Amino acid sequence: MKKREIPDIIVSRLPVYLRALHRMQAQDQQNTSSQELGEQVGISAAQIRKDLSQFGEFGKQGTGYNIVFLIGKLREILQVEHVWDVALVGMGDMGHALARYQGFSDRGFRVAMVFDNDPSKIGEQVGEFVIRNTDAIGQAIREAGIKVAMVCVPASAAQAVTNQLVKAGVKAILNYAPISLSVPAGIRVQYLDPSIGLQRMTYYLD
Amino acid sequence: MKKREIPDIIVSRLPVYLRALHRMQAQDQQNTSSQELGEQVGISAAQIRKDLSQFGEFGKQGTGYNIVFLIGKLREILQVEHVWDVALVGMGDMGHALARYQGFSDRGFRVAMVFDNDPSKIGEQVGEFVIRNTDAIGQAIREAGIKVAMVCVPASAAQAVTNQLVKAGVKAILNYAPISLSVPAGIRVQYLDPSIGLQRMTYYLD
Repeated sequence: MKKREIPDIIVSRLPVYLRALHRMQAQDQQNTSSQELGEQVGISAAQIRKDLSQFGEFGKQGTGYNIVFLIGKLREILQVEHVWDVALVGMGDMGHALARYQGFSDRGFRVAMVFDNDPSKIGEQVGEFVIRNTDAIGQAIREAGIKVAMVCVPASAAQAVTNQLVKAGVKAILNYAPISLSVPAGIRVQYLDPSIGLQRMTYYLD
Repeated sequence: MKKREIPDIIVSRLPVYLRALHRMQAQDQQNTSSQELGEQVGISAAQIRKDLSQFGEFGKQGTGYNIVFLIGKLREILQVEHVWDVALVGMGDMGHALARYQGFSDRGFRVAMVFDNDPSKIGEQVGEFVIRNTDAIGQAIREAGIKVAMVCVPASAAQAVTNQLVKAGVKAILNYAPISLSVPAGIRVQYLDPSIGLQRMTYYLD
């Protein structure tokens, strides 16, 4: 299976399926169907079957999908069967919230180090972390072999921080700063900008 | 212009263009081109021209787009030429961060009221807000005529809160809870789940 052959739009739906399956599992459910999964995530059963069929034959006619098995397969496909260390840059309100966020550990991620450039914050203890100077990003990330980062700095600083991260070997950036980042080919960025999310809905309001 | 005729994918890109234009404006730039805008947002110039042409003729051959004019047009299209009051439910770390977030005001939004169901939080002052009891959501939102909300409660509470919000007249929900929400037709939901964002990238990592 060549990875690049799967359309991004399909890949982008897999984590949503995985999240719903984890929820079913937490409720001690054994099996599910594309119909049931579809209702939970708001995607048609046919689309779900088509998406999953890109990666193999995971369901059985009649009994549907075994939840534990499908979770395992999706974790393998998304490469979250192990836990990724994540570097977090920018310890304002959002950075603090992410450093304490409980929702990463069972989904393949662990905040491993946190940075800020504010002298009054550097050295401060936040949960289990000590805030490090952003000057140290390059060395710390290279030494730890970290590939994944979250950027929570102001828009004005986000591109410079991104450049540091990329230079240090980071390949995937979750960006909370309200600005589009410029990155070399092969580096992935996902955006979490609440104003963008809100503006995508106000268009439709009467 | 019938709104429903524009594909969602085009609408979803407009806030990204608007954000980039605001940034150019902040740097006292007067005009831009689809090429320059495209480089900043990582979308092809042809795609940008095609997207904008759905709504009118905003640029001039040779001089490109007047930034102030195009910002005005996009704000009008996205209906953020005025400020929407937003209800925020769930005052954990993320809710606190959003209540204090400085990035809403110039993009069409204002947190207007905040709620939590934790007796130890109700009545607490957070910035300019007093945390209200989630029991009061229905009446408070109806009286204020609020149409937009952000949900920052745990996954286990998110659907019940969503039902309350929808019943009170909310039409657009920005959901931070790690769960897919079920809503009636005509209600919009956007999701901001950091683990989903990260898993959408790990697929591509070597």
